[in-house]
Amino acid sequence: MQQGALIDFPSGLDQKEMPTIAVDAMGGDRGCAPVVEGALSFLQEYRDSVILVGRKEKVEEELYRHKASPSLRLRIQEASEVVEMEESASVALRRKKDSSIRVGIELVKRGEAVAFVSAGNTGAVMATAMVILGNLPEVERPAIAAVMPTLQDNCVLLDVGATVDCKSRQLLQFAIMGNIYAKDILGKKKPRVGLLSIGEEETKGNELTKEAFKALEEETSLIFVGMVEGRDLFSGNVDVVVCDGFTGNVALKFSESLAEMIGALLQEELSKTLTSKLGYLLTRSAFKRFKRRVDYSEYGGAPLLGVNGVCIISHGRSTAKAIKNALRVAGESAENHLLAHIREGVHRSLKMKPSANG
Amino acid sequence: MQQGALIDFPSGLDQKEMPTIAVDAMGGDRGCAPVVEGALSFLQEYRDSVILVGRKEKVEEELYRHKASPSLRLRIQEASEVVEMEESASVALRRKKDSSIRVGIELVKRGEAVAFVSAGNTGAVMATAMVILGNLPEVERPAIAAVMPTLQDNCVLLDVGATVDCKSRQLLQFAIMGNIYAKDILGKKKPRVGLLSIGEEETKGNELTKEAFKALEEETSLIFVGMVEGRDLFSGNVDVVVCDGFTGNVALKFSESLAEMIGALLQEELSKTLTSKLGYLLTRSAFKRFKRRVDYSEYGGAPLLGVNGVCIISHGRSTAKAIKNALRVAGESAENHLLAHIREGVHRSLKMKPSANG
Repeated sequence: MQQGALIDFPSGLDQKEMPTIAVDAMGGDRGCAPVVEGALSFLQEYRDSVILVGRKEKVEEELYRHKASPSLRLRIQEASEVVEMEESASVALRRKKDSSIRVGIELVKRGEAVAFVSAGNTGAVMATAMVILGNLPEVERPAIAAVMPTLQDNCVLLDVGATVDCKSRQLLQFAIMGNIYAKDILGKKKPRVGLLSIGEEETKGNELTKEAFKALEEETSLIFVGMVEGRDLFSGNVDVVVCDGFTGNVALKFSESLAEMIGALLQEELSKTLTSKLGYLLTRSAFKRFKRRVDYSEYGGAPLLGVNGVCIISHGRSTAKAIKNALRVAGESAENHLLAHIREGVHRSLKMKPSANG
Repeated sequence: MQQGALIDFPSGLDQKEMPTIAVDAMGGDRGCAPVVEGALSFLQEYRDSVILVGRKEKVEEELYRHKASPSLRLRIQEASEVVEMEESASVALRRKKDSSIRVGIELVKRGEAVAFVSAGNTGAVMATAMVILGNLPEVERPAIAAVMPTLQDNCVLLDVGATVDCKSRQLLQFAIMGNIYAKDILGKKKPRVGLLSIGEEETKGNELTKEAFKALEEETSLIFVGMVEGRDLFSGNVDVVVCDGFTGNVALKFSESLAEMIGALLQEELSKTLTSKLGYLLTRSAFKRFKRRVDYSEYGGAPLLGVNGVCIISHGRSTAKAIKNALRVAGESAENHLLAHIREGVHRSLKMKPSANG
C-alpha cells in the first residue's frame, strides 16, 4: 500500500460539503476499538465527516464488527506504522514517517482535514504537530490545555506538558490562548484568568511566576484575577489557570491519580461488610451521577494550542465516549475559528506592547 | 509581662527528666482551642512535657475550660504577640519579636525545648526558624516534608514550599533528608526514593530534574528508583518523592483541594434522593474508615528539615488530633536523633563526592 493512499471504504464522504476531522485510529492504550466506536457514535450525532487514519485491515475489521453503514461520512486513510505508547517521541518522528500520527497531521497540513484527534503517544503527537504544522505566527511555544471539573463548572489548566521550561512571556501567551479557548469552546463569556502559584500574594511563588504576574497584570485583553491555587481551581473561582508545562503536568497527574486512589479505597471500604454493600447498591445512582460530574472523558481531550492547526490530544485510556467528545471539540474548534482568534489575540497583545521582551 | 517570662501554670513540669516540646498556642485558623486540647490529649498518652507558647490569659482560659489538672507536665510561656495567618513572613519576623512563633523557636534555640510545633503562619515559622536556628552545617536550603496517604502505606513528599527555586544539588540534599525522615519517623527500613517528573524516562522533565537525576543516581546512600509521577506516589510504589518547593506545594494543594471537592460532590449526590440517603446511612462506617485512611491529620504535621532544630509545621486547619500527632512526631524526631542523622547523612554525601558542585 502506497503511503497516504486513500481507501475506498465507505462512500458517504464528501469533504467539500462539511468539515472533515482526521482521527488516529491506532492510538491509545486500547488500540483501534474505542476509536472506531467513538467515531461512529460521533457521526450519528454530528454533521462533520471523519477520516480514520491507520492500518486498513484493523480499521475495517472494527467497522465490520460495528456493522458500520457504507453511507456514513467516513473514509480510511492508510498509515502502515504505529507509534507505541512508550516510544521516544523524537525517534518516532525521525523513523516512523508513515505512522498514523504523522499521516493524520499531514492531512491537516494539506487542508484535507480541519483537525486531528489522537489518543496515542502524547509526546509524539506534540513533536510531530510542532514539526509538520509549525507554530502560529508570533506564538513562541505551544501549550496543552486540559479541561478540569470543578465544584461549579469547568476550568482550563494550561500548559500541562508541552513546554516544561517556560519564560514569563510564554506564560502570557498561554493565558491569551487559554482565554480564547475558554470563550470559543467552553462558551465562557468573560473568563477569569489566574496564574498558578503557592499563595495569593504576588510576592510568593518562584522567579517565573513573579515575572509572569507583571506581564499578566499589564495585559488588557484578559480579566486577570491574580495568583491562584488548587482550591481556586476546584472551587470554580477561576476559568483559566496558567502555569509552566512541568508544574501543570505534575498537578494534572496528581489529580488523576488521587481521584483513582480515592475511588479504589472507597470501593474497598464499601465492599467490606454486608451492610455497606447493601448501602452501596442504594447509593449507586448517586455514585453514577457523581462520576459523571468528575469524568474527564466528558471533555474529550486537550487541545495543543499554538500550533498552526487544530490538534486534540486525548487520554491514552480514552473510551469511545471520550473519543466522540474529542471529535466534537475538534469540530467546534474549527467551526469557531479558534486558530484565527488565537493568532489575532497573540498578535494584538504583542502590538500593544512593542517593547515587551519578558 | 516581661518578654519570655515563665508562667507558673501548672507545676508538673520537670524539664530535666523528659523531653519538652514547645507548641505555638496561638497558631492555626481556629486559634488556641484545638492546640490546647491536642496538647492535653498528647500529655495523656505520652511521657514528654509541653510548653504552651502564647498569651497567658487565652491559654489559661482554655486549660480551665478543659479542667486541666495542675499535675500535668505542662507550662505556659508568655508571648504577647500573634502572627496572623495572612501576614507577611518578613514583616512578622522584623516587627513581632514577641510573637508565639518567635518565642517558641527561641526556646528550641536555647535548649529549653527539644522541638517546636506550630499550626500558625507557615511562612513566618519557616523564616523565623531559618533566621533563629539557622541551617544545619552543609545543608544549603531547608525543605518541608509532607506525609501523604497512599493505597498501601504513606509517602514523604518534599519540598512542599520552603525552597521554591532549587538547584539540583539542593534536591539531592532533600532526598537525603527525606530518606532519613522516612527511616527515623515513618519506620521504613529501605525507603525507595524517587524524583518527581512528568514521565519515567530520564530525558523527560525540566532542566532541573534532568540535572538532579544524575546527582541522585550517583548517591550511594539512597535506593533511587528514578523519575516518578503522581500515580507512583498514590499507589505506594515509592517512599520518598523529591521535588522543588514550588512544584511540591502546588501538588500538595491540588491534592488537598481535589479530595475536598470529591467529598463535597459525593455528599451532594448522596443527599439528593431518599434511597441514596438511606444508602449513605448504611455505608457510613465504610465512609468513616475511608476518611481515616486519607486523613492528613493522622500524620500531624510536616517537619521543616535542614534547620538546626526540630520544627514541625502543622496545617492551619489542624484539629486537636492533628496537634497531638504533630507533638508525637516532634517528640519522636528528637528521641530518634533526626538532626544528628541528617547532619551526618548530608556530610557523608558531600565527603564522598568532594568535587560535586551541581
